[in-house]
Amino acid sequence: MRKLTVAAAQLGPIQKAESREVVVKRMLALLDDARGKGADLVVYPELALTTFFPRWYMTDQTEVDTWFESEMPNAATQPLFDAAAKANIALSIGYAELTPDGHHFNTQILTDKTGKIVGKYRKVHLPGHVEFDTERAFQHLEKRYFEPGDLGFPVFRALGGIFGMMVCNDRRWPESYRVMGLQGVEMIVLGYNTPSVNSQKSVEGPEQRLFHNRLSVQAGAYQNSTFVVAVAKAGDEDGHPLIGGSLIVDPNGVILAEAKTEGDELLVATVDLDDTKFGKDTIFDFKRHRRIEHYGRITSQTGVVLPPE
Amino acid sequence: MRKLTVAAAQLGPIQKAESREVVVKRMLALLDDARGKGADLVVYPELALTTFFPRWYMTDQTEVDTWFESEMPNAATQPLFDAAAKANIALSIGYAELTPDGHHFNTQILTDKTGKIVGKYRKVHLPGHVEFDTERAFQHLEKRYFEPGDLGFPVFRALGGIFGMMVCNDRRWPESYRVMGLQGVEMIVLGYNTPSVNSQKSVEGPEQRLFHNRLSVQAGAYQNSTFVVAVAKAGDEDGHPLIGGSLIVDPNGVILAEAKTEGDELLVATVDLDDTKFGKDTIFDFKRHRRIEHYGRITSQTGVVLPPE
Repeated sequence: MRKLTVAAAQLGPIQKAESREVVVKRMLALLDDARGKGADLVVYPELALTTFFPRWYMTDQTEVDTWFESEMPNAATQPLFDAAAKANIALSIGYAELTPDGHHFNTQILTDKTGKIVGKYRKVHLPGHVEFDTERAFQHLEKRYFEPGDLGFPVFRALGGIFGMMVCNDRRWPESYRVMGLQGVEMIVLGYNTPSVNSQKSVEGPEQRLFHNRLSVQAGAYQNSTFVVAVAKAGDEDGHPLIGGSLIVDPNGVILAEAKTEGDELLVATVDLDDTKFGKDTIFDFKRHRRIEHYGRITSQTGVVLPPE
Repeated sequence: MRKLTVAAAQLGPIQKAESREVVVKRMLALLDDARGKGADLVVYPELALTTFFPRWYMTDQTEVDTWFESEMPNAATQPLFDAAAKANIALSIGYAELTPDGHHFNTQILTDKTGKIVGKYRKVHLPGHVEFDTERAFQHLEKRYFEPGDLGFPVFRALGGIFGMMVCNDRRWPESYRVMGLQGVEMIVLGYNTPSVNSQKSVEGPEQRLFHNRLSVQAGAYQNSTFVVAVAKAGDEDGHPLIGGSLIVDPNGVILAEAKTEGDELLVATVDLDDTKFGKDTIFDFKRHRRIEHYGRITSQTGVVLPPE
């Protein structure tokens, strides 16, 4: 029995004009709620400290860099780290990372219960595009502002278990889960900012977007026999709606908790990390069942190679 | 617009004592129904011609071989091939294959509309075990009676599209779909025989088994932007219940048709293979988004490698 109480701290919208300090106050309120419910770990969404700025087209790198954090913790987030350490709660937070040598990543970190950063992940699967796209209803410029993550999909021993992280679009890619599954991951935490409408297909609205969110997370959990905690930034940011639908999913792919609002909302579940064992030892006992001799294309080719005509 | 009418021909139970000839009569009745509904392709389940014999422990290889087909078509199935050719309908059928040089595979074939076999797939992910297992509520001896498939996950140009096949347990493994997705697959057809109860966990009953079936198929369809047709052999075979739940799923992962019974039942859907394009060109444009430099473990290691303590 390895009990853990995990909280998904969904954030409602953050307007472009709102400061990190205002957001951190909301994060502190969610932390306080989580403390009252006995949480060991609180997970915040992707780019938790600001609006989802990749929807804004910018050409001035100095302006772009104002959306990034060059230290973590920093002045704005130190109160959150301090409060979590005082409450003996671990954190996972997404933010835009600017490294000392000038690299830009879409990053998620994991701390232990003392506020020490014990894991870092940099988003591998960047969606969207690099240049202004006149064909889209709105812009999604992650490929412009970020480099693809350079850390792979590492896992970390923390809180008595094996943890992994991913960010937003990573959750649609079975490769993300599988690389961590092959390292025995027991809980994957992730954040997302997902527009409620497909920028390239206006009939694809929130119902289908929420369905794809659930489907991807539930399948990744089941197929790797791991818990997954998926946390949204939700609601209307300056006229741009984002889905909510934060989820805590068990190793059978079953939803334990799901957000009901598009605002700040806390989901809490107490789980037993040992519940990951049955699936890993039976139907998804990789060692007995995987056949890597037939998987070669997955790592040898990036794009589609069509069969001969 | 590349319209295709596909039929999932779910079969109810086949008792151990029933002959192939009796089963083929039921398959012919489903074919006739499909013809009346304008089907271009009829998909039958895994091991469609017999009971799910891997539940029976056998030590006499001569007895084992009675469950296998050494030719396809053969005397028992020729009437089905003839009727399909006459009706101008393509077939996909699962059966136990014994090769001229003595190899045993769990095989699925695809014919064109003249009854000519244009594709063959041999099940890669064999579930179960090799020796009699006293810990299980019932046996699942696929690893005893079959060798893992030796053909990989090929795709085939047929019926104006790109087709792939898998068999039963393959559908739980995202690698199966992805290897075909990387070859531009537009429709995957598969059959299954899935016990209604987990032989190693009696509380896992049909509701959860049907959920995992849907989850795996829907996720594989969505994440590769392909149609998937999943066809059950269902119902009570000599006291051993199998789930039904046959599905036709579109490239968004949405269920177009789902079986309501555990008997012989035909599902029909008319689809446009061009509906696979949007997903393949946008969110799952593999060439733009996949990052194979971080997927290495998927093909370099079979089992789990835990992080250092």
